[in-house]
Amino acid sequence: MSGEPLRIGLAGLGTVGAGVVRLLADNAELVAQRAGRPIRVVAASARDRTRDRGVDLSGIDWEDDATALAARDDVDVVVELVGGSDGPALTLARATLAAGKPLVTANKAMMAHHGLELARAAEARGTPLMFEAAVAGGVPVIKGLREGAAANRLHHLFGILNGTCNFILSRMEADGRDFADVLAEAQALGYAEADPGFDIDGVDAGHKLALLASLAFGTRPAFGQVEATGIRHVIAADIAEAAALGYRVRLLGVAESGAQGLFQRVHPHLVPVGHPLAHVTGSTNAVAVDGDFVGRLLFQGAGAGAGPTASAVVADLIDVARGRTGPAFALPADALAAAEAADGGERRGRAYVRLIVQDRVGVLAEIAAAMRDAGVSIETLVQRGVAADGGVLVAIVTHEGPERCVAAALERLHGSQSLVATPMWMPILA
Amino acid sequence: MSGEPLRIGLAGLGTVGAGVVRLLADNAELVAQRAGRPIRVVAASARDRTRDRGVDLSGIDWEDDATALAARDDVDVVVELVGGSDGPALTLARATLAAGKPLVTANKAMMAHHGLELARAAEARGTPLMFEAAVAGGVPVIKGLREGAAANRLHHLFGILNGTCNFILSRMEADGRDFADVLAEAQALGYAEADPGFDIDGVDAGHKLALLASLAFGTRPAFGQVEATGIRHVIAADIAEAAALGYRVRLLGVAESGAQGLFQRVHPHLVPVGHPLAHVTGSTNAVAVDGDFVGRLLFQGAGAGAGPTASAVVADLIDVARGRTGPAFALPADALAAAEAADGGERRGRAYVRLIVQDRVGVLAEIAAAMRDAGVSIETLVQRGVAADGGVLVAIVTHEGPERCVAAALERLHGSQSLVATPMWMPILA
Repeated sequence: MSGEPLRIGLAGLGTVGAGVVRLLADNAELVAQRAGRPIRVVAASARDRTRDRGVDLSGIDWEDDATALAARDDVDVVVELVGGSDGPALTLARATLAAGKPLVTANKAMMAHHGLELARAAEARGTPLMFEAAVAGGVPVIKGLREGAAANRLHHLFGILNGTCNFILSRMEADGRDFADVLAEAQALGYAEADPGFDIDGVDAGHKLALLASLAFGTRPAFGQVEATGIRHVIAADIAEAAALGYRVRLLGVAESGAQGLFQRVHPHLVPVGHPLAHVTGSTNAVAVDGDFVGRLLFQGAGAGAGPTASAVVADLIDVARGRTGPAFALPADALAAAEAADGGERRGRAYVRLIVQDRVGVLAEIAAAMRDAGVSIETLVQRGVAADGGVLVAIVTHEGPERCVAAALERLHGSQSLVATPMWMPILA
Repeated sequence: MSGEPLRIGLAGLGTVGAGVVRLLADNAELVAQRAGRPIRVVAASARDRTRDRGVDLSGIDWEDDATALAARDDVDVVVELVGGSDGPALTLARATLAAGKPLVTANKAMMAHHGLELARAAEARGTPLMFEAAVAGGVPVIKGLREGAAANRLHHLFGILNGTCNFILSRMEADGRDFADVLAEAQALGYAEADPGFDIDGVDAGHKLALLASLAFGTRPAFGQVEATGIRHVIAADIAEAAALGYRVRLLGVAESGAQGLFQRVHPHLVPVGHPLAHVTGSTNAVAVDGDFVGRLLFQGAGAGAGPTASAVVADLIDVARGRTGPAFALPADALAAAEAADGGERRGRAYVRLIVQDRVGVLAEIAAAMRDAGVSIETLVQRGVAADGGVLVAIVTHEGPERCVAAALERLHGSQSLVATPMWMPILA
C-alpha cells in the first residue's frame, strides 16, 4: 500500500477491543486495500494491562489514562470501546473531538445520552464521529439509514435490537420454558450479563432505537422519550398462546415520526408467523424501515459479539481512511428537529391481553364488561382450564382500536379480586 | 442550503428516470440537507421528447444526443439510465469518465460486461463510478458489501436477485398454477417484459451476481463465467413436491470464492421453509453474505420499480455531493484478481431431481440403477400416480454428495424410453 498508515488509539480491550486488534491483524492486507492505506493500532488503554486477551499487543504503546490517547501526536483516530454513558468514555470522546480527531465508538449509551453534544463538537472541528458498531453489531444499518436510504422521507422503523432478549424469547419458544429459567441459562452461557437489567428491561434496545430514530427522521436523539418495557413479564403461556394464534413473541423497538410527534417504544410484540421478523431467532438483530420512495428495507445480522462488532468498528475506520464521512446523524446537528413525544395511546392496532384469574363464576363476565366499558372490541378470547399460579389463563386478541382503550380496560380491572396476577398486554405487529 | 447545486445531466427518462426527477422534486429540501447542497437536474436526454411522463421537465435543457450531456459545462455529474450493455449507454459512460465527471448508473448489463474498463477509466481521472441502483433496486447492498462489510474476508454470497422470477415463483406457489400461465399474467401486469428472456433465463440475475461477487471477493467482474439456468422448466408439480418436502422454490444467484476458484451460478433452488429467503415473496430481492468476522448479513427490499431504483440513484448522488466515494469495486481496478472459474461439479450438496416417466414395470428400477451407478445416494423418493404430460412424476431428494454425480445420473438416463419429459434438478440450499 502506498499511503501512510492510519494510526489508531484504542480505548478498551474487552471482547470487542480484542476483536478489533485481531481483525486488524488477520485481515491487515485486505483492510489496507479497501482503506487505501494500512490501519494500525499504535496505542491502547484498558483497566488491566496484564490480562491475557489472546491477541498480540506487542508494538502497541500503553496508556494508563485513556484520555491521553486523544493527545498523542501519533494517534490519528480514537476508537472508544470503554462503554458507559458518562465517565471515562465521555471524557475521552470530548477530548478526542476537541483535538479535532475522528472518533469511532461502539457506545450506544453515550451516543443516546450525549450524541447531540458530540455531533456538535465534531462539526465544530470538522472531524467525523462514527458509531456503526453502536447499533445491531455488525449490521451496517446506521450506514443504511444515513446513506443508503438518504434520499427518502422515512416515517416508520421497527426491529429486533437486543440479541439477549431475542435469544431468551427464541429459547422460551423452542423449549416451552419460563423466562427466569432461560435467563439463568443465558447468564451461564455468557449471553446475558450478571446484571441483565439493561438488556431485559429494554434500556439497551431503547438506546439503539433513539439513535436509529434520529438518523431516520432528522430529529435529535431523544432517549428520554422512549417508552421501554422489557420481557420480564412474558411467561411461557404467552408464547404458547401466541403460537396457537399464529404469532411469535419478539421484543421490538418501534419508532414513528408524524404530525403527532415522535413515537418511540420498546415493547414485546406479537409478530405474525409469516412476517420476516418472526424468523429472526437467537441473538440475531433485524431492522425494517419504510421510506416514501424505497418502500421497506430490511437489514439483518449478528447483533453482538467480538467479530461482528469489530467488523463495524473497522468499517468506520475504513470510511475515515477514505474520507467517506458526513454529519454524524445524517443532517447537521443544528438542523435536527427537537420533536415532541407523541402520545402512544392514540395509536391504533390490535392487541394481545393476557390475564390470570380465579376459576369461579362471573370472572369472564367481569373481564368482558371491563373491555366493553373501555371500548375494546374482542376478536378472540381463549380460556384455558389449567394455568400458572393456580389460576386460569385468559388470552384475548382485540380488534383494531386505540391503545388507550386497552390501557383503560386494564385500569378498570386493577385491584379486582378476580385477578391472580398482574395482567399484561402486547401490541400485535400489523 | 449554503452550497452550490450539484448539477445533473440525466440520460434516459423511462420509469426510473422519471422517478429520479420526481424524487428530486418531492424531497428537494431533505436531499439538499443530506447532501449538504441542492441536487438539480439541468439537462436531460431521451428517445422521445414529447411523451408525457407525469413529471415536470420545465427548466431542464434537452439534448437529443445523450453523449452531449458529458460535454456540457453546466453538468457536474451524469446519471445514465439508458440501459443496454453497449451502444449509447456505453458511449455516454466512456465520455463522462473521460471528461473527469462522476458517473451514476443503474445499468447492470453495462457494468457486468464493461465494469472493469469503466472502473479503470474512473480511477485514471480520479472520479467516482457509482452503481447502487444496478443491483437489488433500492436495497443498499453494493454499499453494504463495499463499505459496510469492508473489514471482512467474504467467501460466500447468495440471494434472490430477480424480482420478476420471484414474483412468478411466488404466484405459482400461491395459486398452484404453471409457469407459462403466470408469466402471461406477469406480462399483462407489467411485471415481466414482452421479451422476458433476460429475466426468466437468469441473465439479469447473472449480471447482478457478477457485480456482487466482484465487490465481495475482490475479483474482476466475470459475467462470462456465470452458469445461468432460469425458471422456464419449473412446473407446478415441482413447487407442490417441494412444499410437501418442506421447501420453497427460489431462483438464487450463488457465488463462492475459494481455493478452487470463483464459483458463480444462477439456478432455481429448493430453500427450506425455515430459511429467511423462503419468506421473500413477490418482487422483493434479498442478498445474504458471509464474512469471516461479521458472520451472515442479510439485505432485503424492493428489487425494482421507479421509486426504489430512484432512491438508489439519488443515494449515489448524495454520496458524490458529500465526497463519500472510493474505488468502484471496493479495490483499485488493478488490484482485482482475475479468478479462474471453479468447477461446479465439485460442489457437494443435497439435490432435488424430478422425472416424468412412463407408468410401466421396471421404470423405477431403471432410475434407481442410474442413480446407484452414478454414485448418487437417495434420501427420499416419491412417486405420484397421476402427473403432467400423461406420465408419472418421480421426485427424488438425494443425500449430500458431489453435484457431478447427479449430472452423471441424468446423463445415464438421457434418451431412455422410460422418460416422458426432460428431467430437471435443483440444488437444495443448506
